[in-house]
Amino acid sequence: MVEILNLTRGNPDPAAFPIEDLIRCGEENLKRDGKTVLQYGQAPGYVPLREWFAQYYAVKPGNIFMGNSSLEIFHFITQVELRPGIRAFVESPSYDRANTLLQRSGAEIVDIPMEADGMDLSVFEKELKKGIPALVYSIADFQNPVGITTSEAKRRQIATWAQQYGFWIIEDAPYRRLRYHGIDIPTFLSIAPDRVMQMSSLSKLLAPGLRMGYLVAPEAMINKLIKYAVDTYIGPVLTSQGMVYEYLRQGLLEPNIEKIKKIYGPRLDATLASLDKHIPGTIIARPEGGYFVSIKLPKGNTMDKLLPRADGIGLKLTDGRSFFINPADGNNFLRIPFCQISPDVMEEAIKRVASILD
Amino acid sequence: MVEILNLTRGNPDPAAFPIEDLIRCGEENLKRDGKTVLQYGQAPGYVPLREWFAQYYAVKPGNIFMGNSSLEIFHFITQVELRPGIRAFVESPSYDRANTLLQRSGAEIVDIPMEADGMDLSVFEKELKKGIPALVYSIADFQNPVGITTSEAKRRQIATWAQQYGFWIIEDAPYRRLRYHGIDIPTFLSIAPDRVMQMSSLSKLLAPGLRMGYLVAPEAMINKLIKYAVDTYIGPVLTSQGMVYEYLRQGLLEPNIEKIKKIYGPRLDATLASLDKHIPGTIIARPEGGYFVSIKLPKGNTMDKLLPRADGIGLKLTDGRSFFINPADGNNFLRIPFCQISPDVMEEAIKRVASILD
Repeated sequence: MVEILNLTRGNPDPAAFPIEDLIRCGEENLKRDGKTVLQYGQAPGYVPLREWFAQYYAVKPGNIFMGNSSLEIFHFITQVELRPGIRAFVESPSYDRANTLLQRSGAEIVDIPMEADGMDLSVFEKELKKGIPALVYSIADFQNPVGITTSEAKRRQIATWAQQYGFWIIEDAPYRRLRYHGIDIPTFLSIAPDRVMQMSSLSKLLAPGLRMGYLVAPEAMINKLIKYAVDTYIGPVLTSQGMVYEYLRQGLLEPNIEKIKKIYGPRLDATLASLDKHIPGTIIARPEGGYFVSIKLPKGNTMDKLLPRADGIGLKLTDGRSFFINPADGNNFLRIPFCQISPDVMEEAIKRVASILD
Repeated sequence: MVEILNLTRGNPDPAAFPIEDLIRCGEENLKRDGKTVLQYGQAPGYVPLREWFAQYYAVKPGNIFMGNSSLEIFHFITQVELRPGIRAFVESPSYDRANTLLQRSGAEIVDIPMEADGMDLSVFEKELKKGIPALVYSIADFQNPVGITTSEAKRRQIATWAQQYGFWIIEDAPYRRLRYHGIDIPTFLSIAPDRVMQMSSLSKLLAPGLRMGYLVAPEAMINKLIKYAVDTYIGPVLTSQGMVYEYLRQGLLEPNIEKIKKIYGPRLDATLASLDKHIPGTIIARPEGGYFVSIKLPKGNTMDKLLPRADGIGLKLTDGRSFFINPADGNNFLRIPFCQISPDVMEEAIKRVASILD
């Protein structure tokens, strides 16, 4: 029987989870502060953790909002800021689940094509003239799904427009700390803190099952989200936030990031090498970090033909069309998540992809 | 300085939290199953816990949905089932946060006045004739805020209508296991399982900070909620569900319920006695369980006059108007949550209420 190889979701490698540390941190937090983390709590999250993030980002606790995943924080933002008749811009392709939440809001979603260094600003500007959006959603570092990092010049131009026209930039930054090559580019948040909400998460840096997402944003916006969150669930799960707080304050996150970068970096390089060898000329961008590489299928190949063939040889793929507001745009698009997959298994997976191409 | 007495929210007594047991359960679960509970998971929640609840309720795992609070599950239900142009019935008064979510949906909310044994069925029937609702929200046991338990006869009549006219009964049952006197009445779920979604929670029986809510409902409805949940947050927080699973499977919940009933039951009795002594004739219903007693302020008294006076003597009260769809209906309504407050402190709090009445 052929082993089934899964190239669908962007899961971290569970072998990298620091289980023993998390057990100890959970215990220490419950021992010290159990009566607080087990009680009803504040909607923006566990107070000491909020203070920790405030210090980390050099902002005030009032600028931090924490929730049960950054995706849900984005759900709150879209529900509070968008509705039919309002516009929102999004990179094309983009994170499929973010697209779904944008569409759920009923707003008019405008997809801006991605170039090698970020959104096509000529299209962006043309769309601005048609109507100012309430927000622009961007994964500026190691974008999901295509792996592109938006250049500093483009960030500055978009930030300038945000200030000029008064729209929000939603900077989704879960991969930013996972840079395996090259050097950091200033965040949208650092360029235009008054017009940026930066979301992030510990799902990629620590463990997704904690569902620990957070947001850095101006206080007036945080307060709107707090109101929406109280009305939705009173407050987030606090036991997991207590565990995370203990983990962070003991300085364990930075060494953990270094540890997983040593695992994931070589996996990125191996994935690129396998692609160059077996399906040359198809990589859309050569990512310097993150979770994903994407390819444009060689001419004549489409996802609707590829998916049933992949099924037949024990290969699970994500339909590239799911990353596009206009699904037809993604019929030749394949995303490859590499973090959970060792180099030899990836080589085999890429070989299988190559074997079913026309 | 006067000690401030707080009669606002329905918090459990943190002295009753089984902190040591929860630490041990969290550790055992992470040791055994850490790679699963720390990874991305299933939208309806941690599989072994779903199976545990299925067995407890004698249903299939496909009938169970677990989320980060029962309130948020209700948010999902209202978003999936309600929209402008659709009707929803609710008890009047009812849980303020449930009212908020009903209103957020944009549906037409119809409030049905509560009598001593549940909703006024003559009004219910009249409203049915005006338009069938998509759902009726009821806290049938020890209702929040008024403490009333809906009689079996009324449950059967409402269930009959639900089957006849095809609407859902949302039975919110977080207090049901906290019966201090009298005997259980059959649940809506047991009477009409095909037309009932029963929500419950471990917030009142174990600890709110876990935000562990769940729903028992027909599988087709569960599947709709799973789709909405995946799109909203991928999956709920799993580390807390793992801890809860271990706690439940070790048989610790039943003794914990017995323990807290021994604390809360005498507090209910003491609260009723203090009210009889200091503000006689005002109790709306004498609850046999739950978290709340409510009174109708003596003639001539209103919340808008009482609230500033309460502030002045170190007494925090919840504005009774927040429990009514038509706020003016609650201007003489005061809810008293008794679980977190020892009998001598409650005696002092009730004395303070009495002292500021006209």
